[in-house]
Amino acid sequence: MNAKETAFIFIEFQHDFCSPGGKLYDAVKGELERNRTIPNAQRLLAGAREKGCLIIHCPFILHEDWVEEHACSGILDGILQNRMFAVNTWGQMIIDAMRPAETEVLLTNKRTLSAFSHTDLDRLLTINKIKNLIVSGFLTHVCAQATAFSAYDRGYQTRMALDACCATSESIQKYVETTFAPVLGGPSTVDGILAEIA
Amino acid sequence: MNAKETAFIFIEFQHDFCSPGGKLYDAVKGELERNRTIPNAQRLLAGAREKGCLIIHCPFILHEDWVEEHACSGILDGILQNRMFAVNTWGQMIIDAMRPAETEVLLTNKRTLSAFSHTDLDRLLTINKIKNLIVSGFLTHVCAQATAFSAYDRGYQTRMALDACCATSESIQKYVETTFAPVLGGPSTVDGILAEIA
Amino acid sequence: MNAKETAFIFIEFQHDFCSPGGKLYDAVKGELERNRTIPNAQRLLAGAREKGCLIIHCPFILHEDWVEEHACSGILDGILQNRMFAVNTWGQMIIDAMRPAETEVLLTNKRTLSAFSHTDLDRLLTINKIKNLIVSGFLTHVCAQATAFSAYDRGYQTRMALDACCATSESIQKYVETTFAPVLGGPSTVDGILAEIA
Amino acid sequence: MNAKETAFIFIEFQHDFCSPGGKLYDAVKGELERNRTIPNAQRLLAGAREKGCLIIHCPFILHEDWVEEHACSGILDGILQNRMFAVNTWGQMIIDAMRPAETEVLLTNKRTLSAFSHTDLDRLLTINKIKNLIVSGFLTHVCAQATAFSAYDRGYQTRMALDACCATSESIQKYVETTFAPVLGGPSTVDGILAEIA
Repeated sequence: MNAKETAFIFIEFQHDFCSPGGKLYDAVKGELERNRTIPNAQRLLAGAREKGCLIIHCPFILHEDWVEEHACSGILDGILQNRMFAVNTWGQMIIDAMRPAETEVLLTNKRTLSAFSHTDLDRLLTINKIKNLIVSGFLTHVCAQATAFSAYDRGYQTRMALDACCATSESIQKYVETTFAPVLGGPSTVDGILAEIA
Repeated sequence: MNAKETAFIFIEFQHDFCSPGGKLYDAVKGELERNRTIPNAQRLLAGAREKGCLIIHCPFILHEDWVEEHACSGILDGILQNRMFAVNTWGQMIIDAMRPAETEVLLTNKRTLSAFSHTDLDRLLTINKIKNLIVSGFLTHVCAQATAFSAYDRGYQTRMALDACCATSESIQKYVETTFAPVLGGPSTVDGILAEIA
Repeated sequence: MNAKETAFIFIEFQHDFCSPGGKLYDAVKGELERNRTIPNAQRLLAGAREKGCLIIHCPFILHEDWVEEHACSGILDGILQNRMFAVNTWGQMIIDAMRPAETEVLLTNKRTLSAFSHTDLDRLLTINKIKNLIVSGFLTHVCAQATAFSAYDRGYQTRMALDACCATSESIQKYVETTFAPVLGGPSTVDGILAEIA
Repeated sequence: MNAKETAFIFIEFQHDFCSPGGKLYDAVKGELERNRTIPNAQRLLAGAREKGCLIIHCPFILHEDWVEEHACSGILDGILQNRMFAVNTWGQMIIDAMRPAETEVLLTNKRTLSAFSHTDLDRLLTINKIKNLIVSGFLTHVCAQATAFSAYDRGYQTRMALDACCATSESIQKYVETTFAPVLGGPSTVDGILAEIA
């Protein structure tokens, strides 16, 4: 993979997932530690910076639109009812360890699961002549997987850096590692992916 | 058209277009007056409220992403170079005459021409079971027309309320009235459209 | 769920998956029998017809575009190399048990994983004022799940009829039942879903 | 513009537009001759081949889906009622003068106005690392313009080769030349565009 044609997206490295006191921290705490998600993601981010790749940070922010109140179901309804990632709260801030640099892209408007939905992600990739997309972040089997599914269908060479992702249990994480990563093809670890990029 | 299945989108009723001192005001001033855009749009908005339709306000906000600096051409480049609709300025505020009510939708993230691009407009319409979309605003032949093209392709019964739109010259406005409105089919005036909705 | 606002999509009930001699039959044969996918899908189809819902059949057809030769990776590359679902072959035909009726929609142009990608599915749903989408078919954890992810993000009330789906192993099927179905919310069996529709 | 990053799309060079006896031929005959659309498009195609650019042919085919019968309005309704471009007819065949070469892409599934809607055009451009899209064909102010609007919003450097397009009147053609081409920026003639590509 050519570095100039490769982008990295870091999904939802926010306090509500990553920090004690965050609303979803207890749900992921065990896997954060076992999988070493944060240090691995830092290594991935450092590698992407060193190689000069396009870097995109993608938080989820809960906006107070009335529409959401009436219409969503499943996991988005849980987020809404519990006011996770609520706009202007500490919980929705990106953690210091993964703080975006000034020249990096901060993707706004992610409102559902895939980072392509309702955002200008695809346009950013087009403008920057990106062919390869590396996905990391939270949750492995929800937003990260949904983003990878979308990227693959759109024709990007797609990789999940699964040791820089985090699920809610080890068995879920293993499922994605053994069953979904081969759907995409190629390596699925921070080191394996960075080694592919020249 | 059933009122419960009909949404109205009001595009870019912001100071930079509508108010003396706005950065694009001089370019549209003549047509604003000749076409009576603002009073017609107010009548359209009042009608939509009275019939209980879904109402969506759609400003354009220039965010300070570095990507924009390097990549756009044509009309978006002009907006960027002249810092029109810049975030947190008076110019990007919606004018009082068209102020959104609390229960109405304020669409964020419009970054290019069509209101469907990079926003969750289509999802809002789906959630609300909308079948018909009424388009009004600025400029008749750029963002309003681009939005109508997108809506039509997506399967919405689409109307432009052309006397609640505004172009940069009478001949352009007439072109859209006589040549593009028939591409969509149906009426293309505030009164004609409101009369269609029961 | 209102029947008039509900659509059912039946994904890839084709010989290459469902019939002895099909190129992927051996990979799914065990789960086809254990999960009783075909009889359950027939019951789902009969129920959808009885309730007067919109019915959409969605095969995958491998077209001989040169682009595919050079560009895909992962699972699509496997399909290509093995000429599965190749246009004009027996393998890509829909099985008799799930044969589309004349008035039902046959969705063409599915070329990747989600049935929304590169097709006019979203437009068909819009035109028909659909709010709810019921997903069934092959493979549970690839095209069916990708379609469900897309539908959910687009604002459709989304259900997977998982006993009318089929994976390549029982443990994968169980993963989707226990971990992904709750992401969507609501019931995930043929009988549970049909009971929701009035 | 780098030739390797540039694609050309040729829209609807089919008998129903281009040949005596075609269902829309009389509507465009005057402009076909005045604008010299076919010879200009041949020069554009030859130039694109010589430079080694990606070449995409995009016909419109009217499929006999029942959904279309009930749902479209405006120009698509006219096409439907008059069975223009009907599948398997002479009218929908691409003319010999613009016949696709074996290695060129034949885009299927265009069903509405923009060539991006319901097709895998964006995926083809992504796979091929395309940054620039050159649009030509029919009608200047309907499908060609809709495609250009979509391409611009998606972040492609977009040009209309307007002397290789055709409208239904000279005044419409002039409108697009003088008013819409500057929205995109850059040159808008076959020679001007080919000169940009190295």
